[in-house]
Amino acid sequence: MFNWKFVFYVMSVLMIVESFFLIISSVVALLYGEGDFICFVQSAGISLFFGGIIYLFTQNCSRDIGKREAFLVVSLVWVVFSIFGALPFLLGGYIPNFTDAFFESISGFTTTGASIVNDIEALPHGILFWRSLTHLLGGMGILVLTVAILPVFGIGGMAMFNAEAAGITMGKLHPRIKETAQRLWGIYMLLVAIETIFLVFGEMDWFDAICHSFGTLASGGFSTKNTSIVNYSPYTQYVLIVFMFFAGVNFTLHYFAIKGRFRKIWQNQEFKVYTGLIVLVTSIITLTLVYLDHGTFEKSFRDALFQVTSIITSTGFVSADYSLWHPYLVFLIFGLMFTGACVGSTSGGVKILRHLLLFKNSILEFKRMIHPSAVLPVRYNKEMVGQDVISKILAFVILYFMVFFIGCFAMTLIGLDLISAMGAVATTMGGIGPGLGVVGPMNNFASVPEVGKWILSFLMILGRLELFTFLIIFVPSFWKNQ
Amino acid sequence: MFNWKFVFYVMSVLMIVESFFLIISSVVALLYGEGDFICFVQSAGISLFFGGIIYLFTQNCSRDIGKREAFLVVSLVWVVFSIFGALPFLLGGYIPNFTDAFFESISGFTTTGASIVNDIEALPHGILFWRSLTHLLGGMGILVLTVAILPVFGIGGMAMFNAEAAGITMGKLHPRIKETAQRLWGIYMLLVAIETIFLVFGEMDWFDAICHSFGTLASGGFSTKNTSIVNYSPYTQYVLIVFMFFAGVNFTLHYFAIKGRFRKIWQNQEFKVYTGLIVLVTSIITLTLVYLDHGTFEKSFRDALFQVTSIITSTGFVSADYSLWHPYLVFLIFGLMFTGACVGSTSGGVKILRHLLLFKNSILEFKRMIHPSAVLPVRYNKEMVGQDVISKILAFVILYFMVFFIGCFAMTLIGLDLISAMGAVATTMGGIGPGLGVVGPMNNFASVPEVGKWILSFLMILGRLELFTFLIIFVPSFWKNQ
Repeated sequence: MFNWKFVFYVMSVLMIVESFFLIISSVVALLYGEGDFICFVQSAGISLFFGGIIYLFTQNCSRDIGKREAFLVVSLVWVVFSIFGALPFLLGGYIPNFTDAFFESISGFTTTGASIVNDIEALPHGILFWRSLTHLLGGMGILVLTVAILPVFGIGGMAMFNAEAAGITMGKLHPRIKETAQRLWGIYMLLVAIETIFLVFGEMDWFDAICHSFGTLASGGFSTKNTSIVNYSPYTQYVLIVFMFFAGVNFTLHYFAIKGRFRKIWQNQEFKVYTGLIVLVTSIITLTLVYLDHGTFEKSFRDALFQVTSIITSTGFVSADYSLWHPYLVFLIFGLMFTGACVGSTSGGVKILRHLLLFKNSILEFKRMIHPSAVLPVRYNKEMVGQDVISKILAFVILYFMVFFIGCFAMTLIGLDLISAMGAVATTMGGIGPGLGVVGPMNNFASVPEVGKWILSFLMILGRLELFTFLIIFVPSFWKNQ
Repeated sequence: MFNWKFVFYVMSVLMIVESFFLIISSVVALLYGEGDFICFVQSAGISLFFGGIIYLFTQNCSRDIGKREAFLVVSLVWVVFSIFGALPFLLGGYIPNFTDAFFESISGFTTTGASIVNDIEALPHGILFWRSLTHLLGGMGILVLTVAILPVFGIGGMAMFNAEAAGITMGKLHPRIKETAQRLWGIYMLLVAIETIFLVFGEMDWFDAICHSFGTLASGGFSTKNTSIVNYSPYTQYVLIVFMFFAGVNFTLHYFAIKGRFRKIWQNQEFKVYTGLIVLVTSIITLTLVYLDHGTFEKSFRDALFQVTSIITSTGFVSADYSLWHPYLVFLIFGLMFTGACVGSTSGGVKILRHLLLFKNSILEFKRMIHPSAVLPVRYNKEMVGQDVISKILAFVILYFMVFFIGCFAMTLIGLDLISAMGAVATTMGGIGPGLGVVGPMNNFASVPEVGKWILSFLMILGRLELFTFLIIFVPSFWKNQ
């Protein structure tokens, strides 16, 4: 029997937790003496009310659950959080349309950072804080999920990478979910705190510094400014670059860094490719921008590095309008929307480890053609990777492009041009934020038709939960009693 | 030791064979009393001269060859044929630039059908015949290679599909290469002959009918008209649709049809998906065109069916300018550039069998997540497909998109816009012909910069030889003595 009661129980707990964070936002609003505090109190009340009632009816549920309940809970987490997270936007009248409010909310929780708000600076502090807070919670959620929970549950796709393929078994961090999660929280919040302090040293006030730190470490991308990072000083931009880079690193490597085990970091192949890719693409873009008289070398380098880091880590902050660059640079940026950063980070997309293992496998396929009888396994960090893992990754990437293709088809169907459609789908699936064309870095998603916003919302969850975890609940045999 | 002598020996035989076909073209020119017969005599002479000399020095070579020699020969076949095939264009002054002449020649031999000729109707009959003849030879070459030769050599990628994965072992056709090749020739030329007769019943004269039949069965796409098929009657267009469809079918199924074993055809899953996909996409396009007042229902249906069949089979004849259709229809057409038709046909691209097996594998991946301990192999035509075959196909598709991506990057780098770049790369890799944007169905490749033509020429061979067979000669360890 499917343990529905447990699923509802977890959801009720989540609603109660969310009401707590809504109250925090109301406190922020109160501190600034702004009227939006009331919409947070209302939202928290609604959240607490529903959460409380369901909790009362389900708290005595059986804790005996299988994989199916786990899959469903994981998928529903993002949906439930986003629905209740949309309440302040709606009740405060800042985003009066439910589609838009839900889009903004899910874009926050999935750490995408795609916005439908035209005048961000007109929003009160409480709402701005809540937008950034959804990033913080979403980023933490995905870390705990992919690094701490899923590997222990032994659930397919993502667990595979962290626990087995990546050669970083959880045993090396700590055997129990709770303590792993606490350590992740610690590292995550420590980085947020350090970034905030660095930002305050620049021209940002505490509020903007905190909001941008939330958006950075979660690789989210919501800014408190209409022009994102464009008008901030070089200092602030460099600080953001460094912390976006950190957000894209596997968090177990941060743990190793704190423990002083740097050899573990230098030997990590994914980290090397991640760094190398940023250096390579930044160099290409910098040289082209210098050649095309974009500005001084420093400005060209900074704009290139910022955009590359922002897109590859799926953050989505914008310091320059890359859509105006030479077409081949735009194409490079578009390509980065599919790489993603490291597994076990807050970044979205395909992730570099998958690309790396697939690349190694393709190279080996040539060797297998020459030596058909030789056994040639893929190796990662000197350990052998099973062919079943490679097969899972291949299936993931194929599915990713299949969904991308269907998504593009749907978006052109509702009237977007091809470039905008590809940009919109790539950026939402990858959890990035800015796309191309009408959803480019200097535009937002307000102009996308209603049904398109629902499709993109769906793609955001799909990408965030790495396809399988979410799609599986739509497979009929998933629901058959076993 | 690498048997270079054998490689040169095969090339010399090919040159002698090619000089024979050049002479046939000169006869065609003579029949029309046109002066281009002389450039064919010259080309044949050059071809025969070099072929003859190399033959004399290599005919006593050892026939003891390994896979490496086979791979190199297969790759060089297309290059050598295309180089000597470019001679008539050059010597006759019809295409005075070598890059252009080579592009036109390789586009013919790879049965792509992308042209750089602005005024096709200004070309004399001999040259037009030669263009179409390169299609015929290229189409036959790929059939013999993929259906008859490679499976016997047991060479990776393609052999895999025809001999093993497809469940159609060569034993069922005939055990020896020569007889298999002869049967393929028989079926192929029979279809060419039947199509020619059907076309002559319409408004085409014998010359145009023969040229278009060559272009159809080879899934090539060179036409003798500047506007391709646009100005031909509905009857002629329907005839072409039927034979384009035939060209996209696995030729072993044609053999079964001749033998009256129709059950073999209906039971073939790839054939079903191929037919189903054409019906599905044609329906979508027809309904949209009718809705958007494209013309009568019949015209909408015919334009839709023609374009879908032409693109999916990688033929590339054009009866309507699809680039002017609604963006989502353009996107559908673009998508068809990646499907290809059946394996063992003359069509290019990824091929439906690969997509089908990958799709089945992705579905199974979900089931494997729910039942991790169950053994769930992919089945095709009721037979089990090994995981090593799936892995090879996955590696192929990943590599295909990797090359597509790098190709697009290169084309944008030399100045094409993103849409045109994607269209040009997709259509040349898939062996189709028309692309999008500046290389769209009503344009040609004349405007592509010189270096771009070389890149696209490279992509044509790469796509035609299904990546691995060609790319492997660039792998350093391929050349290490074993």
